[in-house]
Amino acid sequence: MSQESQPEKTQTANFEERLQNSADQIETTLRSLLTDAPRGTEQLRPPKLLAAMQHGVLNGGKRIRPFLIVEVARMLGYDQAGVLRAASALECVHCYSLIHDDLPAMDDDDLRRGKPTVHVAFDEATAILAGDSLLTLAFDILADEATHQKAEVRAALVLGLAQNAGIGGMAGGQSLDIEAEGRDRTEAEIRQMQAMKTGALLRYACEAGAILAEASAKEQAAVTRFGTIIGLAFQLADDLLDVTATSAQLGKTAGKDLQSHKATLVSLNGVDATRETLNSLILEAEETLAPFANKADVLIATARFIANRQH
Amino acid sequence: MSQESQPEKTQTANFEERLQNSADQIETTLRSLLTDAPRGTEQLRPPKLLAAMQHGVLNGGKRIRPFLIVEVARMLGYDQAGVLRAASALECVHCYSLIHDDLPAMDDDDLRRGKPTVHVAFDEATAILAGDSLLTLAFDILADEATHQKAEVRAALVLGLAQNAGIGGMAGGQSLDIEAEGRDRTEAEIRQMQAMKTGALLRYACEAGAILAEASAKEQAAVTRFGTIIGLAFQLADDLLDVTATSAQLGKTAGKDLQSHKATLVSLNGVDATRETLNSLILEAEETLAPFANKADVLIATARFIANRQH
Repeated sequence: MSQESQPEKTQTANFEERLQNSADQIETTLRSLLTDAPRGTEQLRPPKLLAAMQHGVLNGGKRIRPFLIVEVARMLGYDQAGVLRAASALECVHCYSLIHDDLPAMDDDDLRRGKPTVHVAFDEATAILAGDSLLTLAFDILADEATHQKAEVRAALVLGLAQNAGIGGMAGGQSLDIEAEGRDRTEAEIRQMQAMKTGALLRYACEAGAILAEASAKEQAAVTRFGTIIGLAFQLADDLLDVTATSAQLGKTAGKDLQSHKATLVSLNGVDATRETLNSLILEAEETLAPFANKADVLIATARFIANRQH
Repeated sequence: MSQESQPEKTQTANFEERLQNSADQIETTLRSLLTDAPRGTEQLRPPKLLAAMQHGVLNGGKRIRPFLIVEVARMLGYDQAGVLRAASALECVHCYSLIHDDLPAMDDDDLRRGKPTVHVAFDEATAILAGDSLLTLAFDILADEATHQKAEVRAALVLGLAQNAGIGGMAGGQSLDIEAEGRDRTEAEIRQMQAMKTGALLRYACEAGAILAEASAKEQAAVTRFGTIIGLAFQLADDLLDVTATSAQLGKTAGKDLQSHKATLVSLNGVDATRETLNSLILEAEETLAPFANKADVLIATARFIANRQH
């Protein structure tokens, strides 16, 4: 296809290529962090546990959260090698949450991106420990000098990740989600749960980029707002996909929310209204990053990609 | 009893009183960290998940690891309020590991200190999330300014905890332990597993006290060596207790290692040889802390207490 005749498609193609290049870099960084060589004061990395961690992490994911860290930091003028480490730490936390969420006692999923989940490929005990170890490794990576030379930045990265991943963020959101299964939920309850379960880590991805770049309070606020919008859009798109996509497109069982009578904003408000909300979220994302002018192009494209993704 | 006639018993009584006072302070700090008020950027603390975390943490434990942090820091002249926070963070990690180790997929224990374990009192999903959230909270606490004013110290605390709790430390040790069940183990394998599963966190407790006090490299090395010895003594005493104590004394099922045909250093070397090893470890602990003269009295008493405890 020529650039002249299909500018929009080409822009999308360019974006997806950029996302893929970034995912490749993250994969390389994750691979180097998940070698069998002990780090620092570590004594030994037991092979089976390490293999389970690798299985849960090196899975060809899109690496959206790492991409957000990298691109926010870049927009704010920061482009050091440590950014890839911080981005990989966040991905470790995302992957730990998938491993634990897939467990029989939680969502009981056998497939993830078309591959057996960690407790299926290994065993439950190993899956629990692999999740625990990935969560722990994330903080190891963030606190290491190689991630950022300033200890203030490293401590801020750790604090933000802990608060967004713990009881008041992602883990708390998963708890709310499990608690509400099998009963009706209000829109407010669903919003709260999603803001914690999915939104917190996506917002943190943007915040972390600003922390790494030592951005001003004003920049940090704009970027964090953008992160909140991204989080909302991501979840709405996910809920839409559960209704409209096939299992082959998703690499996991489609229609699972419907089957489990799980209320989502789509089941409450309908597909059309949800698409409208997504469109207005993209406009809001553009307004939020307007002060950064064309430096924000990649992040705006990311918002569009998240809202319109087909898998 | 009078101090004159029973000096040794009185010294022990004084030590146990000091340990109990410290445990009370830790309990108070943990209680304040586990309130329903969100910290920092946290959004909401779901009540059931919070209750499960409280159940797993506020259990009247002896708080040996926190005590080691506090007393090492004190010996090195550091006695700020933040020490109790760092000590509580370490206890959160210890308690998370107990919650996950007790799960049906792991050691499948119903009782812990005479109370139902978290997955029994709540459910498996909540127990998994409570452990995850306690691990995460530990890093939140350590990275917070209230723990230490210097970001370098906070980052060093986080790094040390992560490396000692993760795949190369505690979690890795649990993985090795599970892997070896039902087959013979060599003494070297048992030592490696114990050094990671139990030893790493006890050694870190001592290291963390030195990090908080910003100790010299020489002091740090001595204290870390002491922590390694404490770790060895703790595990040997534990294995001895499994053979010699009753379930009532332990608050959990006694003889579990024997029942599960789990080789320990006691089953390999016998009770008498193990007691001898314990005695020589105490002598080594005393030598290691000799440079600190009588400032080390409490830590020496701790080593004796760990080696001789009856429950």
